[in-house]
Amino acid sequence: MGRVLVIGAGGVSTVAVKKMAMNADVFTDIMLASRTLSKCDQIAADINNIKVQTAQVDADNVEELVALFNKFKPDLVVNLALPYQDLHIMDACLEYGVSYEDTANYEPLEKAKYEYSWQWAYKDRFEKAGLTAILGCGFDPGVTGVYTAYAAKHHFDEINYLDIVDCNAGDHHKAFATNFNPEINIREITQRGKYFEEGVWKDTDPLSVHKPLNYPNVGPKESYLMYHEELESLTKHFPTIKRARFWMTFGQEYLTHLRVIQDIGMARIDPIDYNGQKIVPIQFLKAVLPNPGDLGKNYTGETSIGCRIRGMKDGKEQTYYVYNNCSHHAAYLETGAQGVSYTTGVPAMIGAKMFMKNIWKKPGVWNVEEFDPDPFMKELNEQGLPWHEQFNVDLEM
Amino acid sequence: MGRVLVIGAGGVSTVAVKKMAMNADVFTDIMLASRTLSKCDQIAADINNIKVQTAQVDADNVEELVALFNKFKPDLVVNLALPYQDLHIMDACLEYGVSYEDTANYEPLEKAKYEYSWQWAYKDRFEKAGLTAILGCGFDPGVTGVYTAYAAKHHFDEINYLDIVDCNAGDHHKAFATNFNPEINIREITQRGKYFEEGVWKDTDPLSVHKPLNYPNVGPKESYLMYHEELESLTKHFPTIKRARFWMTFGQEYLTHLRVIQDIGMARIDPIDYNGQKIVPIQFLKAVLPNPGDLGKNYTGETSIGCRIRGMKDGKEQTYYVYNNCSHHAAYLETGAQGVSYTTGVPAMIGAKMFMKNIWKKPGVWNVEEFDPDPFMKELNEQGLPWHEQFNVDLEM
Repeated sequence: MGRVLVIGAGGVSTVAVKKMAMNADVFTDIMLASRTLSKCDQIAADINNIKVQTAQVDADNVEELVALFNKFKPDLVVNLALPYQDLHIMDACLEYGVSYEDTANYEPLEKAKYEYSWQWAYKDRFEKAGLTAILGCGFDPGVTGVYTAYAAKHHFDEINYLDIVDCNAGDHHKAFATNFNPEINIREITQRGKYFEEGVWKDTDPLSVHKPLNYPNVGPKESYLMYHEELESLTKHFPTIKRARFWMTFGQEYLTHLRVIQDIGMARIDPIDYNGQKIVPIQFLKAVLPNPGDLGKNYTGETSIGCRIRGMKDGKEQTYYVYNNCSHHAAYLETGAQGVSYTTGVPAMIGAKMFMKNIWKKPGVWNVEEFDPDPFMKELNEQGLPWHEQFNVDLEM
Repeated sequence: MGRVLVIGAGGVSTVAVKKMAMNADVFTDIMLASRTLSKCDQIAADINNIKVQTAQVDADNVEELVALFNKFKPDLVVNLALPYQDLHIMDACLEYGVSYEDTANYEPLEKAKYEYSWQWAYKDRFEKAGLTAILGCGFDPGVTGVYTAYAAKHHFDEINYLDIVDCNAGDHHKAFATNFNPEINIREITQRGKYFEEGVWKDTDPLSVHKPLNYPNVGPKESYLMYHEELESLTKHFPTIKRARFWMTFGQEYLTHLRVIQDIGMARIDPIDYNGQKIVPIQFLKAVLPNPGDLGKNYTGETSIGCRIRGMKDGKEQTYYVYNNCSHHAAYLETGAQGVSYTTGVPAMIGAKMFMKNIWKKPGVWNVEEFDPDPFMKELNEQGLPWHEQFNVDLEM
């Protein structure tokens, strides 16, 4: 049905490409490219039903990207590289003329700052080129936007309160490890907290607001208010929202490790001089920490991510909780990757599938909640991320 | 009176060289050499009453060292470089024919393992060459050995119990910093604990044995049993000792930081591959952490280090506590370095002075307690590290 080029070869890519191969009727030709060819080859070697091509590419080099696009002639480029490479890849897509999908919004390399402005600024150019760009199609952002769109479409006349809750009740049995790229992880968590209320953004000290929330099949877990990028697009696209917040669980030990990593200067994103060479401490730290892609084998427990929504339906207040629980071990058995990679990689594949099937295809730059959620929700149930609904329960909001 | 060559240009060196310059009647010619010439020049530039020569030298390169010795013709080489460079410097001293002093015993680069065996093995060669080697002449080891020898000479017929207590009740006002080379600091603290009792060595998990001890002018501080190198030489040279232990204070935050540094792999002393380059994590960490030599300016509080001794005198049991308290700020005002550098650098200078004045001079390899303690004790009072005695007080032993 279509040719897909995936850029990036981490844990999320491992899942996305394997899932694409399981949907080989849609993804008839798959290429996987990253800075390190051997990583691509390793992922491709695990796939038997279809030949996955591999290539070496520097995702920051627009010319190299365009040359690769010219060679492979993709219908869609799925960007699973690092967030600060988004714009280079979008530039290359425009230059060559191919549609685009990613899972995390652009942030400048020098400053951890999450906003869609940079990517939304491409809307006109994609529209004029007749190309589709699907932004943020992992789990959060991604499924959380689809959940919200689905709730708005089927269960609410207006959504007033939205709490996105992200719990990882897993145990990788390491003293410390991050579940995805530690650089991105630490940049994200160390930023100031921010939430939307009554038309304005309110900010908090990093991780200073927290409370225990109850997660299905998990129980209570201390959850921390933090900023997450889908809050920006969802409050824009659902203007009836009075308050939108994002909560993520962290263990005390994780937070202690994080605090120390900052204290000792290893979270720094500016280069230091080491024996006459410029090295960014957080990038060196990444090389020392366990590879998130290798955590799967001994990972027990599950994730639980969902949307808790309060709003009006037929003149009455209603609450709604839609969520998925994902077992790390089941994810590992299926793809060799842990649940955090799995819950991001599967929606990336589904978004690409929506595009390939012409269901999510319209010129411009779009967040996932701007498309029809129903076919995506159907795929979630079929591709390993089944969702569950609870109506009019206590949402702890 | 004599020519001294100091190797190493860290905080201890800063203090030792400045103190040598204050004793210019003894140290008539001073040279300071290290891998980084600019550090030597910086220290030398602060000294006005005497010209301190500087040189660049790789302390691991015996030929380079010998060439430098041939040029400067020192009477004594004072090694204030890194512990795992001791043997190369001793080799060079033997090859050229010059006496030697250091402040910390040799340890192999690959493994944090503290014992005098490697250096004691040089005894015959130094003896035959008619050269003196003074080992471990900082504060601990160093002054603690002199204290013990002084106690044995003046206050005891036999020493039975020895607790060396090392308290740093200072505050450098940084989230985390080590007081001397972080590599050496972390290697030392993360090793297993060990103490001597009834003729055998008993070992413990790292920092697992601890209790509050009361320090003069400081009060109670949680103190951790750990191995320290002078326990080996003191139990050998004072065979009446039934039990010898070493205690050091650490704050809870310091220990948390240390634990995390280990957890995340930044305390590793084996090289990892970073972008095709071999980098030792703990050496990279050193480049990120505050430079111990720069802590002085805002360092408040004081150190308190001493020996608590129980033994027999004239058929009666007696207890004795001899200690020094050193103010970080006073040390900074005098030398630009904090108290931990000061308490190590001053005794290094005094040991060198003892040698230059032919008081501590005998062919062979010696620990400080094998020399007459009295002239050294007198110098301690005159050079900025006055000591105090308490008799028959509760030693918390």
